[in-house]
Amino acid sequence: MSLAAPRALRVGLLGCGVVGSEVARRLVENTDELAERVGTRLELAGIAVRRTGRTRPQALDPGLFTTDAPGLVKRSDVVIEVIGGIEPARGLILTALEGGASVVTANKTLLAEDAGTLVDAATTAGCDLYFEAAVAAAVPILRPLRESLAGDRVLRVTGIVNGTTNFILDKMSTEGTGFATALQEAQAHGYAEADPTADVEGHDAAAKAAILASLAFHTRVVAGDVHREGIREVSTAVITSATQIGHVVKLLAVCERHDDVDPAAVSARVHPAMIPAGHPLASVRGAYNAVFVEAEAAGRLMFYGPGAGAAPTASAVLGDLVTVARHRLHGAGSRGSGHNDGRGDPAPPRLAILPIGAIVTRYHIALAVADRAGVLAVVAQEFARHDVSIETVRQEGRGTDAQLVVVTHRATDAALAATVAGLRRIDVVREVSSVVRVEAEDA
Amino acid sequence: MSLAAPRALRVGLLGCGVVGSEVARRLVENTDELAERVGTRLELAGIAVRRTGRTRPQALDPGLFTTDAPGLVKRSDVVIEVIGGIEPARGLILTALEGGASVVTANKTLLAEDAGTLVDAATTAGCDLYFEAAVAAAVPILRPLRESLAGDRVLRVTGIVNGTTNFILDKMSTEGTGFATALQEAQAHGYAEADPTADVEGHDAAAKAAILASLAFHTRVVAGDVHREGIREVSTAVITSATQIGHVVKLLAVCERHDDVDPAAVSARVHPAMIPAGHPLASVRGAYNAVFVEAEAAGRLMFYGPGAGAAPTASAVLGDLVTVARHRLHGAGSRGSGHNDGRGDPAPPRLAILPIGAIVTRYHIALAVADRAGVLAVVAQEFARHDVSIETVRQEGRGTDAQLVVVTHRATDAALAATVAGLRRIDVVREVSSVVRVEAEDA
Repeated sequence: MSLAAPRALRVGLLGCGVVGSEVARRLVENTDELAERVGTRLELAGIAVRRTGRTRPQALDPGLFTTDAPGLVKRSDVVIEVIGGIEPARGLILTALEGGASVVTANKTLLAEDAGTLVDAATTAGCDLYFEAAVAAAVPILRPLRESLAGDRVLRVTGIVNGTTNFILDKMSTEGTGFATALQEAQAHGYAEADPTADVEGHDAAAKAAILASLAFHTRVVAGDVHREGIREVSTAVITSATQIGHVVKLLAVCERHDDVDPAAVSARVHPAMIPAGHPLASVRGAYNAVFVEAEAAGRLMFYGPGAGAAPTASAVLGDLVTVARHRLHGAGSRGSGHNDGRGDPAPPRLAILPIGAIVTRYHIALAVADRAGVLAVVAQEFARHDVSIETVRQEGRGTDAQLVVVTHRATDAALAATVAGLRRIDVVREVSSVVRVEAEDA
Repeated sequence: MSLAAPRALRVGLLGCGVVGSEVARRLVENTDELAERVGTRLELAGIAVRRTGRTRPQALDPGLFTTDAPGLVKRSDVVIEVIGGIEPARGLILTALEGGASVVTANKTLLAEDAGTLVDAATTAGCDLYFEAAVAAAVPILRPLRESLAGDRVLRVTGIVNGTTNFILDKMSTEGTGFATALQEAQAHGYAEADPTADVEGHDAAAKAAILASLAFHTRVVAGDVHREGIREVSTAVITSATQIGHVVKLLAVCERHDDVDPAAVSARVHPAMIPAGHPLASVRGAYNAVFVEAEAAGRLMFYGPGAGAAPTASAVLGDLVTVARHRLHGAGSRGSGHNDGRGDPAPPRLAILPIGAIVTRYHIALAVADRAGVLAVVAQEFARHDVSIETVRQEGRGTDAQLVVVTHRATDAALAATVAGLRRIDVVREVSSVVRVEAEDA
C-alpha cells in the first residue's frame, strides 16, 4: 500500500430533485466521515440538472450545477443517477460505464425495463453498477440477496414494496375507511402522488418485483414479465372478510421458484392478497416496506424499514457510493479490474417465466347467491368440476343479502379462473363479489 | 479478462461439528451452483478435525479428514473456521491470514474477545476476513451494517440475538410458564445446552453485542466492555407486570451512541427489558432473532430470521465464502490487493465506552410495601431525592400483598441504582421486588 495520500474521487450527480438534493447535502456535510469510510475524499464534481438558475439547497455551491450531463459524466469517477425514468437516464448510465466510471442508481423503472443492457455494459467495462435504493429505499435487500445469500438457494420472495398502497390498505383495515378516503389521506400525507396510478395499479411494485426476482433467482425478469393487479378492487367488504378468517389484506409482490412444475421456471406477480394476521408481514404498518425471503438453508428472513423518502433513499445511495468508491480506490470495480461483485447479477436470462395460469395458491371467493335450498350443492359442484378443492364454506345473510364465502385449497390460477367463469353462468349465483388470493399460509 | 478457465480455489474447513458438517455437505452437493456464482470451482481441500476415524457425514470422502490443521491451512486459498472458542481457532486464523489465505469464520466468542488482532492481521496481509455467521446466523446483519449503511450514521442497534432466551421468555409470556419449566422445554427442543449459562446469563448475547457495536460505530468494542445481565431474575410477576402496561419482556442487546453526553462515546449492554407490544421486536417469537437498527438517514430498519441452527449458519458461511472467493478470483481480497471491503472494519478503537451508570433509560420498579397511608409520599420523595422523575405509579393489592408499581421517566442508571438503594432503606418498603428497564419506547 502506497504511503502517498490517494487522490480524491470525483462524483457526478445526475438529477437534483428530492433525492438528489438530499444526496448532495449529505455528501457535502458528511465529507469527513465518508472519506474515513472510503479511504479517500469524495469530491462532488457537479450536479446535472435540466435548468440552472432554480432555487437549490443553500448548502450547495451554485457553481456545481450544470445542464451538460454528458460532460459531467465524462469527468466523473463515479456517477450517481437519480433522474428516474428511461431516458436520458439510460443513455447517461451507458456513457458513464463505457467511459469507465462506476454507477450508482436508484432508478427502478429503468432497471425493471432494461437491467440486462446496463449489466452487460457494466460487465464489458469491468465497472460497478449498484442500485440498492431501487427497492425499498434504505432497507438493505438487494445486497443480501446477491451477496449474503449467494451460497444458498432462494425459494420465494414475498414483499410489501409499495408504501402508498400499504398505507391505504392499513387505513382501510384499522379504521374501516373506504378506498377513496384512504387514498385522499395518503395524498394529504404526501405518500401518494396527485396521479396515483403507478402505485395503486401496482406498476411500482411490479418494477420492484422484477428486480427482486432477477437477483433472487440469478436470472433476468423484466416488469413486463410480472403479472399485475392493483388495489382498486379491494372493498371494505373484502377487508372485513379477511378479518373474519384472521387475515389482513396486503398488496404483495411474490417471486417464486416452481421446482415441482419445472425447476427451470420462476414467476413474479403483484396483487392484493389475504395473509394470516400472525405472519411477520401482517404487522407492517403505514407506509413501511418489508421483504420476506425463504431460502433453502437460511430459512425465513425478513427485512423491514421505510420504503421511500428522501433521507432513506439517500442513505442507500451513499452506502452504494462508499462501496463502489472503495472498489475504485483499491483497483477493483473500475475498468479492466475483472472484479464482479457489483455488476448486478451477471447471469443470463436462463430461467423461464411461468405464466400466471400455472401459479398455484389459495383463494377467498365471495358470492352473492339466491337464498334457497341446494345453492351450496350447485356451487360446490362447479368447484369440483374444475378440480378446485374447497377448504371452508360459510353461508351468510338471508334473502337478498345471502352470500357464500368459499376458501379453497391450493389450485392453479387457470383452474380458479375457469371456476369463476363457470360460477358466473350459474343462475343461483347473482354475483361473484370478490376473488382474492390467500398467501403466506405456510409461514 | 483471460479466456483460460480460472483455476479452482482450495477451501480448507477447520472443524466438523454440526455447522462444519453442514458446510461441507452443501459445498460438495452444490458445487455447480457455487461455481456459477463465483466464476470458478471451489474445491474442498480438506477438513481438519481433532480425531479421525469418527463417524462422519456419508457424502464426504474419508480422505478429506486430517488432524493436521496447520498443514491444511497452508495449502488453502480460503480457510473456513467453525471450531469455535479462542484457541486453536485464533492461531489457525492468524496462520491463514499470514500465509495469504482469506478467512471466513462463525466464531463470535473469538471476535468479541479479540477482533482487533484478527482485523489487524487481515489488513497487514491484505486478505479478506468475513464473519456474517457470528451474529444471528443467516440473518444478514453485519454486511448491511458495514456496507449498506456505510454512508449513513447508525445511532442505535437493538437486538434480540439469543434464540434460547427468547424462546424461554416467549414461553413464559404466552403460556404463563415459570422460568425453570420454560428452560427445560428449551432444552427438550434442543434450543438450550445442558449447561445453559452462556445463553441464560447473557454471555452469548454480549459477544454478539460487542460485534454489532464495533461494526455499527466503526470502533472496537469487546465482550468485556458490554454490561451484562441475564434472565434468571425474570419472574412470572415481571412478565405479568409488563403485560399490564402493554409491554413484553425480551433479552435485548442495546448498542448506542451518546451524542448528548459525548459524541465520541458509545455503549453496549445486554439485559432483560420491557418493550411496547406494538414494537416490531415484540413480535419476534420462539427462537427467532431480530436486529432493529436506527440510523440518521435510513430511519428504522429491522432484520429478522432464525438466529441459530446448522443450515442457517451454513448459509451465512457459504455466502461469505462466495464473496471472498470472488474477490480472490479477481485479484482483490488476496495478498497485497489493497482491497478493504472484507477485513472487518479497519477503524481503530477510537470511541470511548460509556459506563453503565451513565446510560439513560426508563425503569419499571415493583415494590412490596406496607399497607398504610403516606407510603406513596415517602416512596415518591426517595425518587425525587435522586432526580428520578416518575411517569406513573399504580397501587395494587391490600395488606401483605400491597405493592407499588412505578414507571419512571428517563434517568441514568446511576441515579436509578441510588434510588433503589435508598428505597431498600425505607421501613415501609418491605422489598424491592423487581427493577426492569423499559426500552424502545420512541419507536
